[in-house]
Amino acid sequence: MMCQIDLNCDLGEGYGPYSFGQDEEIISLISSANIACGYHAGDPQQMFKTVKMCLEHQVAIGAHPGYPDLAGFGRRSMGLSYEEIRGSIIYQVGGLMAIAGCLGGQVVHIKPHGALYHAALNNRSTAAAIIEAVALLKGPALMIMAGTKIVDWARESGLRVIEEGFADRNYQTRGALVGRQDPQAVITDPREAAARVLRMVTEHQVDCVGGEAARVTVDTVCIHSDHPQAVNMLTEIRRELGRHKVRITPAI
Amino acid sequence: MMCQIDLNCDLGEGYGPYSFGQDEEIISLISSANIACGYHAGDPQQMFKTVKMCLEHQVAIGAHPGYPDLAGFGRRSMGLSYEEIRGSIIYQVGGLMAIAGCLGGQVVHIKPHGALYHAALNNRSTAAAIIEAVALLKGPALMIMAGTKIVDWARESGLRVIEEGFADRNYQTRGALVGRQDPQAVITDPREAAARVLRMVTEHQVDCVGGEAARVTVDTVCIHSDHPQAVNMLTEIRRELGRHKVRITPAI
Amino acid sequence: MMCQIDLNCDLGEGYGPYSFGQDEEIISLISSANIACGYHAGDPQQMFKTVKMCLEHQVAIGAHPGYPDLAGFGRRSMGLSYEEIRGSIIYQVGGLMAIAGCLGGQVVHIKPHGALYHAALNNRSTAAAIIEAVALLKGPALMIMAGTKIVDWARESGLRVIEEGFADRNYQTRGALVGRQDPQAVITDPREAAARVLRMVTEHQVDCVGGEAARVTVDTVCIHSDHPQAVNMLTEIRRELGRHKVRITPAI
Amino acid sequence: MMCQIDLNCDLGEGYGPYSFGQDEEIISLISSANIACGYHAGDPQQMFKTVKMCLEHQVAIGAHPGYPDLAGFGRRSMGLSYEEIRGSIIYQVGGLMAIAGCLGGQVVHIKPHGALYHAALNNRSTAAAIIEAVALLKGPALMIMAGTKIVDWARESGLRVIEEGFADRNYQTRGALVGRQDPQAVITDPREAAARVLRMVTEHQVDCVGGEAARVTVDTVCIHSDHPQAVNMLTEIRRELGRHKVRITPAI
Repeated sequence: MMCQIDLNCDLGEGYGPYSFGQDEEIISLISSANIACGYHAGDPQQMFKTVKMCLEHQVAIGAHPGYPDLAGFGRRSMGLSYEEIRGSIIYQVGGLMAIAGCLGGQVVHIKPHGALYHAALNNRSTAAAIIEAVALLKGPALMIMAGTKIVDWARESGLRVIEEGFADRNYQTRGALVGRQDPQAVITDPREAAARVLRMVTEHQVDCVGGEAARVTVDTVCIHSDHPQAVNMLTEIRRELGRHKVRITPAI
Repeated sequence: MMCQIDLNCDLGEGYGPYSFGQDEEIISLISSANIACGYHAGDPQQMFKTVKMCLEHQVAIGAHPGYPDLAGFGRRSMGLSYEEIRGSIIYQVGGLMAIAGCLGGQVVHIKPHGALYHAALNNRSTAAAIIEAVALLKGPALMIMAGTKIVDWARESGLRVIEEGFADRNYQTRGALVGRQDPQAVITDPREAAARVLRMVTEHQVDCVGGEAARVTVDTVCIHSDHPQAVNMLTEIRRELGRHKVRITPAI
Repeated sequence: MMCQIDLNCDLGEGYGPYSFGQDEEIISLISSANIACGYHAGDPQQMFKTVKMCLEHQVAIGAHPGYPDLAGFGRRSMGLSYEEIRGSIIYQVGGLMAIAGCLGGQVVHIKPHGALYHAALNNRSTAAAIIEAVALLKGPALMIMAGTKIVDWARESGLRVIEEGFADRNYQTRGALVGRQDPQAVITDPREAAARVLRMVTEHQVDCVGGEAARVTVDTVCIHSDHPQAVNMLTEIRRELGRHKVRITPAI
Repeated sequence: MMCQIDLNCDLGEGYGPYSFGQDEEIISLISSANIACGYHAGDPQQMFKTVKMCLEHQVAIGAHPGYPDLAGFGRRSMGLSYEEIRGSIIYQVGGLMAIAGCLGGQVVHIKPHGALYHAALNNRSTAAAIIEAVALLKGPALMIMAGTKIVDWARESGLRVIEEGFADRNYQTRGALVGRQDPQAVITDPREAAARVLRMVTEHQVDCVGGEAARVTVDTVCIHSDHPQAVNMLTEIRRELGRHKVRITPAI
């Protein structure tokens, strides 16, 4: 049995004079990038640069639209209407699509960012607005948390879905992430993260806080690029996966 | 000889809670719309609404990118670099292209807005950045002031160019507009505007301040949508052109 | 018994090229203005102009800080932290204080805007952040909905509080406003509004949907300046109050 | 003769999730801070944090207002009107004054940032708008480049002026800075910078490109905090000044 997995990171999260993350180190370790589209982070210069890096490293280009909240980095909840969510995703992703097109690339997936991602999991109207936006953009797949309701809704709407697991976040027994306010939320040991990713990929299991395991089937694994250990974690994950002949490749 | 001309207006210049201009009255009087793309005015909701209006009224959809300056409505000069101009145009127009695509429409021209338009006429680097952006976006024509150097540069770069005249602005003898600070800058009488447009279209002449006429060959005529007489002016222009069998139709 | 009441409106809600509301008509009809401070609406030019109007009409100058969300006009909920709420209020109000000071005026009250106002009523942490911000600014009173918990908390913190009623909004029996999504939320008949205000001021009662009356003691009455009937409503309220010898004057 | 000088740096230039510069290292090496006020960089959280650091280290608190251009970090020229410049300075500085006041501090100087600083030196209307803004704010001194015309104009208007020299920038013979596009613009050797500062302070001379020296009398010396050698340079300057018994202390 050939086993493969996608590794994704958020890239291009600088803005104007501000740099963010370690894109240069990360780009050669991942197979998919989620590129900030200018609302919560990123600007046209960043997008050009990041798309170029993706093309040079054969990394799949994804759009990472967020709430219009640069000061809050898209991590603060915002009460946008259905139409505002749909419209702002189409606009942002359209901007990245144009930039990718100019450079000979193509946006192959869309992953909501931050508070928009969380609202997608917890709010039916937000999920529907995201699904309609992705559907209207005709082409890119939706990348979203594995095993959630929006996965089913998106597939019912005819979308391709890339189901995502998290290397550096602890899970609750019922498959949800442990909230960031919890001290156990984030996994910091690269070896532990690597072991978890391997188990997710090869056994479709993730160890949860409390000891039980939850079943999870993932097409891609996210490593948070602003995690201080992101590069070490990615290196360790690649080593562990390589040792077990798991191929790292874009999900679509 | 069949004679025809395009009439264009800037539309979709509201933002969030703010409305601007008289789009509903204007849309049925023009053949091309320049739609604000979110940097100097406009937002995804406005773009959706304006593209829909264009499709309903068979008005050609154009992008109207500007400087990133909502507070100044893109009318203040800004020292953007070549790369910043190019990138911001591609991003903004890409956003509108995606929205138009979702609604079954297509962006057929790009007209820079405000201070960016003026810089295009007066600054070689700005002109080159705009030309490269339009070229990279593959498809839309560049709409810009008739008889200017950027027209030639754009054609040399292989772009289609829509040459533009102004119904409501006075010209200098050498073909440039009279600056807005001059009391003679703006024409307010709808009949005078209509007579000028007719002469521009049929005789390729425009009367200048001082009395002489300048030669001008235009594919489209701009009526400023924020002019208090915009609707009256458009009505009068249509009447005058109709009387002389000039057809009003998009330039491409 | 001398009876008096304050009438307040939100003013200065334009932005850059965008105008909003009917400030010129309203200013002579009110005794207190809540001036937008640049985060959800307003800009320094608007603030200068509006403070000047207040000084010319002896209208009390209030600050109207909101969420940093121009596109949403501060009406969308936003998940700001305690520190972010406190800091953004102090910054915005400080900006208005400086402008008022330059013109010889003084900010005498602070009224949170839109979604921040609603969060103040429903979220203890938001209320506490607002109270701390007002306390730190030393001087201005807090204007907030009469009879709510934040009124008590603010007084316990040593703040002066201006308790507010609404002329153009229906109340629920327990004293809360009927939500805007309810068709009965907004009162549109100026005479009905005037009668309600009179009753609020002289009898401390407000008729609620369902027929019962709720007890309410108010220092000021808000008329929404973007209500299409705002001017008519204010005119009718002034007439009705005048007829009953109620003096209209700032609350402090 | 007692000799003293002020050393100033721009601080608080982060924004939301973005950090910038090495404020923690720099704060103990300077006597005055120019704190970004939210238009070109900075936000209320940054301002709180930076004012606190200043108070802890007895560093004089200055405001550093800039153009409303976060993406361009206030370094891009912008065609603001007189009223827009005046209003935006008062608003920004007012915001910082309020924050400083909450923490028991006080804004003692105002130094325009980036392109606004350069416009102040080269454009009479910009200079006049800045001077009027500082005058209206009653209290803070204006910090601006030594020997320039705006120094005289500001003094004629009754302002206190802090004249500034640059440790890390080369001068032209006539006293202006060498433009940043010139490879000689920036001084990178900490020892060279320190020697220049000493000469400026004790001999009122600065060596210019070409070999001649220009006369310059400075109250403060600026070290650019985003210079990669900023900390080393400050350390070297302090050592060199200390060796020559020059006291480092705020200018007012």
